[in-house]
Amino acid sequence: MINIAILGFGIVGSGSYDLTVQNAGLIEKKVGDSVKVKKIVDILDFSKHPAWSLFTKNFDDVMNDPSISIVIETIGGTRFAYDFTKRALAGGKNVVTSNKELVSTHGLELAEIAKKNNAVYLFEASVGGGVPIIRPLKQCLAANEIEEIFGIVNGTTNYILTKMRDEGISFEDALKEAQAKGYAEKNPTDDIEGHDPIRKMNILAWTAFGKMADPEDTNAKGISGVTAEDIKKAKADGCAIKLIGRAKMADGKVKCSVAPERVPLNNPLATVDGVYNAIVVRGNFVGDVTFHGQGAGGRATASAIIGDVIEIARDIVASRKRA
Amino acid sequence: MINIAILGFGIVGSGSYDLTVQNAGLIEKKVGDSVKVKKIVDILDFSKHPAWSLFTKNFDDVMNDPSISIVIETIGGTRFAYDFTKRALAGGKNVVTSNKELVSTHGLELAEIAKKNNAVYLFEASVGGGVPIIRPLKQCLAANEIEEIFGIVNGTTNYILTKMRDEGISFEDALKEAQAKGYAEKNPTDDIEGHDPIRKMNILAWTAFGKMADPEDTNAKGISGVTAEDIKKAKADGCAIKLIGRAKMADGKVKCSVAPERVPLNNPLATVDGVYNAIVVRGNFVGDVTFHGQGAGGRATASAIIGDVIEIARDIVASRKRA
Repeated sequence: MINIAILGFGIVGSGSYDLTVQNAGLIEKKVGDSVKVKKIVDILDFSKHPAWSLFTKNFDDVMNDPSISIVIETIGGTRFAYDFTKRALAGGKNVVTSNKELVSTHGLELAEIAKKNNAVYLFEASVGGGVPIIRPLKQCLAANEIEEIFGIVNGTTNYILTKMRDEGISFEDALKEAQAKGYAEKNPTDDIEGHDPIRKMNILAWTAFGKMADPEDTNAKGISGVTAEDIKKAKADGCAIKLIGRAKMADGKVKCSVAPERVPLNNPLATVDGVYNAIVVRGNFVGDVTFHGQGAGGRATASAIIGDVIEIARDIVASRKRA
Repeated sequence: MINIAILGFGIVGSGSYDLTVQNAGLIEKKVGDSVKVKKIVDILDFSKHPAWSLFTKNFDDVMNDPSISIVIETIGGTRFAYDFTKRALAGGKNVVTSNKELVSTHGLELAEIAKKNNAVYLFEASVGGGVPIIRPLKQCLAANEIEEIFGIVNGTTNYILTKMRDEGISFEDALKEAQAKGYAEKNPTDDIEGHDPIRKMNILAWTAFGKMADPEDTNAKGISGVTAEDIKKAKADGCAIKLIGRAKMADGKVKCSVAPERVPLNNPLATVDGVYNAIVVRGNFVGDVTFHGQGAGGRATASAIIGDVIEIARDIVASRKRA
């Protein structure tokens, strides 16, 4: 049996738990051993959850259990997540995360700590939700000089822009609707000012080019300045307005940007609507390859997280056989 | 140094060679060792090729060279390709291929031979050209129960259908144009009657479900019966006609089919034009994920082939370190 722990039981953490339960047979078949959630760490009260016996408020319970080899971190932010991830990796536990803020801020350091301790730090779920993009960049497209990566990597702003276009409403009204539906947070700054998508572009840049952009080569502009009038005019010109992230190498430097752009309607990115994400990778041999799917949500993001867990679990099974 | 051989120096074989030369530095950095083409096997005369010293007409020259650990097979068909692949794998050499006919016909047997001899048989390039699909199915999306895989997996027929729609011409005229441009073969039966796409759907089914469809659960219908009138009528109803491949489990059995379908214009598959491919994977947690890009061509397909080579080469370097 391969034991895992989940840190943070919000939408992604609970989605990941549900997946391990619902698809347990399939996962066991693919790994060659069963994968079980042994501990869930969250400070809230889950005494009414059917799996309440797994819950603890104390991260030490994970660190003190040598049978736990994989830790899923879905706490978000950089405070507890950073500390817990460092301790887990330093203790030789593998960590899988959807936390783009942590990966874009401390990813290089955490990957180093992982390497030193014979552990891995995987973050497929940190960009594009359920859409495979990190592993395809590292493996399937590894033979290419990557010329540029660009696309729609923030579902909240894409939902707002789609609403504004379809209903002709103002940014403020569309934001309110997104908040009411749970697609935007109460404090929406991270999404609407471009902080969230620029983090994701930096993670893609790190994956493709081996380093993130320096602050002076980073430019994030959000959508709070986009008006109903802008969208109407763009439509009249046969364009949609989309918040497009870009990452590329120029003059030996990594450059990352996020900004609203006019996208002609015959461009596939123009028809990526609602909370969907689409990422285009331009390689010198493969040309343009596009990855499209649900960029957020507990179930879709759990797909990426447990995909990473399965990869690690397979390696654990393979190394047992070699031993 | 990691030595490789290329069998068959057609459009994909030569594209793969070009890639190893043009992106040599990048590949060395990613693998941790240089990857060099040491032999190229082809019965034609390449005495004017700059790398003529690498060419041989005799496959034994590859088998007798223990320094060659990876063989790229781009011969196509099942005659020589089958024999050479079996011998290479039985000799413990890893094989990478774009040969969908061979993989769909003898893939299970070849994968078994590989396993017994501690080698691997990889075929990312056999479906979707440069589009990553096999590895994402095996890894990134491994946590999902796959409900269905469907999409456009044959560039030749998609080019013909696109021409018929855009120019209002007959199937016969569009086929002639595709042949003149090198997008269709002189004997186009494999593509236009659906044999090529049904092979690809079987390879996807094998990857997702662990087995291919039995002949009685396989249904391939091509586009030779599609008329200019059909396309005009579909257009009037807001639809495009696309040759859609499908693979799914039903009643415990794998079912694969290929047939022309009416696709509403607001469906992303309707706007996949020319020689592009697009494959949708529907998972029980991730929902729909779409992979889109160039489904054929020497450079795009070489991207997938050398991606597989890099994966094997990395494993060789890792196992050296463990030894």
